[in-house]
Amino acid sequence: MKLLYPTSLVLDAQSLEGFSVTLHPYDVKTPIPDEHADADILVTWTNSAANLSDAAKRLTKLRWIQSLAAGPNDVLSAGFDTSKVLVTTGSGLHDHTVAEHALALLLNAARRFYEMRDWQLQAKWPQHLGGPQPDRPKDKFTTLRDANVLIWGYGNIAKTLTPHLRGLGATVRGVARTPGVRDGIEVYSDDKLAELLPQTDALVMILPGSDSTRHVLNADRLKQLPNHAWVVNVGRGTSIDEDALVAALQDGQIGGAALDVFEKEPLPESSTLWRAPNCIISPHAAGGRPQGAEELIASNLRRFLAGQDLKNIV
Amino acid sequence: MKLLYPTSLVLDAQSLEGFSVTLHPYDVKTPIPDEHADADILVTWTNSAANLSDAAKRLTKLRWIQSLAAGPNDVLSAGFDTSKVLVTTGSGLHDHTVAEHALALLLNAARRFYEMRDWQLQAKWPQHLGGPQPDRPKDKFTTLRDANVLIWGYGNIAKTLTPHLRGLGATVRGVARTPGVRDGIEVYSDDKLAELLPQTDALVMILPGSDSTRHVLNADRLKQLPNHAWVVNVGRGTSIDEDALVAALQDGQIGGAALDVFEKEPLPESSTLWRAPNCIISPHAAGGRPQGAEELIASNLRRFLAGQDLKNIV
Repeated sequence: MKLLYPTSLVLDAQSLEGFSVTLHPYDVKTPIPDEHADADILVTWTNSAANLSDAAKRLTKLRWIQSLAAGPNDVLSAGFDTSKVLVTTGSGLHDHTVAEHALALLLNAARRFYEMRDWQLQAKWPQHLGGPQPDRPKDKFTTLRDANVLIWGYGNIAKTLTPHLRGLGATVRGVARTPGVRDGIEVYSDDKLAELLPQTDALVMILPGSDSTRHVLNADRLKQLPNHAWVVNVGRGTSIDEDALVAALQDGQIGGAALDVFEKEPLPESSTLWRAPNCIISPHAAGGRPQGAEELIASNLRRFLAGQDLKNIV
Repeated sequence: MKLLYPTSLVLDAQSLEGFSVTLHPYDVKTPIPDEHADADILVTWTNSAANLSDAAKRLTKLRWIQSLAAGPNDVLSAGFDTSKVLVTTGSGLHDHTVAEHALALLLNAARRFYEMRDWQLQAKWPQHLGGPQPDRPKDKFTTLRDANVLIWGYGNIAKTLTPHLRGLGATVRGVARTPGVRDGIEVYSDDKLAELLPQTDALVMILPGSDSTRHVLNADRLKQLPNHAWVVNVGRGTSIDEDALVAALQDGQIGGAALDVFEKEPLPESSTLWRAPNCIISPHAAGGRPQGAEELIASNLRRFLAGQDLKNIV
């Protein structure tokens, strides 16, 4: 059996040895060489669209694709015959790094580093941001201590993020399709949003991109947030109605927005988000660094060879 | 007995009731009224220099000053007769908020929000900062995961900061006058710096201001840091030789500096720090928000009335 692994990230291929499988590196930006057209298993990471659509035609023996992306839209739209080819995702490989970025965005917002930077560029000391300050003033988001953080899309990234927020003194609640208590966190279904949003100091969006999540944060829901509330998005850009968000920022209807994902990426120069007040633009930088890929591949490879169900099946 | 408490912050005076002490609010920016010149106890927070030097002359019955600042230099230089007046500090009231700011500065550095902001102001997408990235590349500081963080000045703020850093996957070591293991952290004396600095990805300075800490981070010690290492300072500005730091930043000798404190504050417009590469200027914003002041005052008041030793004596 033959497995092709990408050279677009550093993988410890040795840790995958010991299976009845030969391991071959390949370049994800060029067509897969003829000698490897008989591959059974393909591991993908940042493959070009041309590489994937070519592979979909030429890798006729392919039975399984292990993507290292959390959402392998590239693989799913490349034309593979999914009646024959199983696709598994890299869900879980990005939890830590996305959670760290979300925490960083929340602290950037609370501590107003973006505003400090604007002053620094003019060599001016922003006196109003330093020195003695009221401690946890009502109706401001200046610290995670005693802040109410609502995580919309309460999955594995949220679970990784939550202990950091609680450690800093925040109260965390979640919204997900399946309500219930998870690791001590109350998770509600989205029909409770009208109650939850008015009590929120920071709303963290970690929703996947799909038709059902499109523009779920719209003008009506933005109005339900307090005027000081921040919106952080590390999920998918399509979950926010960006025009409504810009309007809410311009009207001071919310405290600010720290966004890592956008409806269109790269964010077009013409977007009004760039210069909306209290808006932090991060260039889809939260994830993009799979961690623990070898363990996932090895574990799924074991299952695959044993004829068992794989993890992270699409 | 009479205690004067400041109106410069919100204090829950009710929580101080029940002692044989009358409680009176006072304005810290004007002279203390004649009717209160007989006060025994003065709680201070952001008092004006004039208020304090006037109080030093007129409050002849004063026996104890409880400052809410971690370093009450203002009280100590106001001319109180310290043979008669005991001074206690607000050490501990700022641990959480300074630790949160230090964490925020470290994440700002690792995730390069300051650089993203510069691009945002030009409505340009910084492609190099987003998308697929190498995971924890050697000789870069891009995440706290697996980062070596050295805290120079390992006291209570450091102890509060450490769990957050470890939670994010960092290895933490400390430097302090008294070496030893504290809460599982190896704390070294400063004669080990030549060994520790070359292994450091981020150096967090939390040193008090004093003659013995003046310019301890100088050109020689900056040279011992790896080229990718960041310096964070939330202690006192005097502990860093700023000219040497600017030179190290300009030469790319270190990765960057995130500074909340400066030799001169506000940082003068003429300072070369404003425009040094990879330098983050925060306007002494880490602390300035005493937390738990009532508990400290009540606890020290109990001890004072019982004739016991007070906490945080200067």
